[in-house]
Amino acid sequence: MLLVVDLLGTFVFAVEGATAGIAANLDLLGLMVVAFATALGGGIIRDLLIGAVPPNSIRDWRYPTAAFVGGAVVFCSYQLVSQVPAWVIIVFDAAGLGLFAVAGAAKALDFGIHPFIAVLMGGVTGVGGGTIRDVLLARIPTVLRADVYATAALAGAAILVLGLSLKMNPKLMTILGAVVCFLLRVISVWRHWNLPRLLLH
Amino acid sequence: MLLVVDLLGTFVFAVEGATAGIAANLDLLGLMVVAFATALGGGIIRDLLIGAVPPNSIRDWRYPTAAFVGGAVVFCSYQLVSQVPAWVIIVFDAAGLGLFAVAGAAKALDFGIHPFIAVLMGGVTGVGGGTIRDVLLARIPTVLRADVYATAALAGAAILVLGLSLKMNPKLMTILGAVVCFLLRVISVWRHWNLPRLLLH
Amino acid sequence: MLLVVDLLGTFVFAVEGATAGIAANLDLLGLMVVAFATALGGGIIRDLLIGAVPPNSIRDWRYPTAAFVGGAVVFCSYQLVSQVPAWVIIVFDAAGLGLFAVAGAAKALDFGIHPFIAVLMGGVTGVGGGTIRDVLLARIPTVLRADVYATAALAGAAILVLGLSLKMNPKLMTILGAVVCFLLRVISVWRHWNLPRLLLH
Repeated sequence: MLLVVDLLGTFVFAVEGATAGIAANLDLLGLMVVAFATALGGGIIRDLLIGAVPPNSIRDWRYPTAAFVGGAVVFCSYQLVSQVPAWVIIVFDAAGLGLFAVAGAAKALDFGIHPFIAVLMGGVTGVGGGTIRDVLLARIPTVLRADVYATAALAGAAILVLGLSLKMNPKLMTILGAVVCFLLRVISVWRHWNLPRLLLH
Repeated sequence: MLLVVDLLGTFVFAVEGATAGIAANLDLLGLMVVAFATALGGGIIRDLLIGAVPPNSIRDWRYPTAAFVGGAVVFCSYQLVSQVPAWVIIVFDAAGLGLFAVAGAAKALDFGIHPFIAVLMGGVTGVGGGTIRDVLLARIPTVLRADVYATAALAGAAILVLGLSLKMNPKLMTILGAVVCFLLRVISVWRHWNLPRLLLH
Repeated sequence: MLLVVDLLGTFVFAVEGATAGIAANLDLLGLMVVAFATALGGGIIRDLLIGAVPPNSIRDWRYPTAAFVGGAVVFCSYQLVSQVPAWVIIVFDAAGLGLFAVAGAAKALDFGIHPFIAVLMGGVTGVGGGTIRDVLLARIPTVLRADVYATAALAGAAILVLGLSLKMNPKLMTILGAVVCFLLRVISVWRHWNLPRLLLH
């Protein structure tokens, strides 16, 4: 079950990455590279940092496969994919984000990482892939500039970590963390929430 | 023998990296950094991903030395280097690419990585360095946009991995993989082959 | 004592990173990410390369905390921070650079890395964070273009490594390496020293 959800999240992130790749006029292979990096980059960075080498997505062929299938779907049916309403993408993306954030934090705790840093690792898992995608496309990562995205991932991861340290039910806290991240992201897009920033004159 | 070829490949990639550094108006040290990253970045990423730490080029001083010599040669004799005909660079680069791709895939297999992912690791070894170079120079990695480059690396790696899983002679398959990658790259430049891409209107 | 100095260096680098983040119009979280990457990125890359996983700053919560405090200080009192004279920043930054360079080289030696490469690791520790910051902000890393920065880090690391291989007093060489790096950096800014570069016509 968890594996299926995880692969689905990978697929959704890959679709988004490939779509960005098409917008940047990449060829088929470039598109696959960006799909792979977007979908699996966050988890790879987390695994390298917590010492879980080789990273999961290098050890298990199903993860790259899910990413490449996502890329191929975009390439083969871009006309279709580009007509999917924006809110569908945002909802799926928020679901993937919530899942990746709690899964990332949980894995970091499993590897004996300090809870405070496990929360950060949840954030890295959620947004790392999109950051690599933007670096490859030579633009400032949107996560650095735009709205409540990494914040939602960190909030979801924090709820899980806090709950576990208070000895609450792990399954419940996992679901709660993912749901809060999901809602925070979706509502922030809907209500145009933004983090404060300094205005320079 | 293999070591000599490997160091030669490192040297060639370093020369290319340094040449790109000069075009970007870097100073001597920036040039050395770019030479190092271009020559050794792909192998370092591969080694981190497959869990071969410290990476080879950190463990063996001859690799950085080969890279720095390449950078120094460019710096000291740029007038000369810049007059080398383009096809010479392309031929040497294609040879280095073929070598790096099969060596990368073989090393991944040695570390027990799944064959499908070992092919990807061959590709990463071949093109990773150039990608880091382009990221450092704040431009979209050429490998994402341009012609048959990573594709050739993946093809060479795939031939090796396929051959080994069919129990064919390892030496033969290594040479065959490297040669196919080399030819694919050289011919694609010569015949202006490109991968398909979607045209947006 | 060493820990305090190390955390102080982390704090200073984080302040610089956050200041660059504000100039790039990032929001609060983006600012924290850039502060974190600038302060701890160099050490993380070094630790990954020499096989010291999980990296120190992932294992010890005080390092991220120091980085985030640096980011928060900038966010909360940017008017104040932006009025600190440039030379104060340069002096503190040079001190942090010297410290990171010798600490990085020493740690690499501890992990059995070849002395020549340990010097490189000192350089990576000193300048890696700033390089990641510039990559995230989609600009060519200043370290590649500008003046005597990485050079000072490499010189400081080289003095330590050379001294240790000549069996000289470790404490003395650590201080000497850090001081030379510091002076080299400060004087180079003051006297407008630059590394040679090729001029293209």
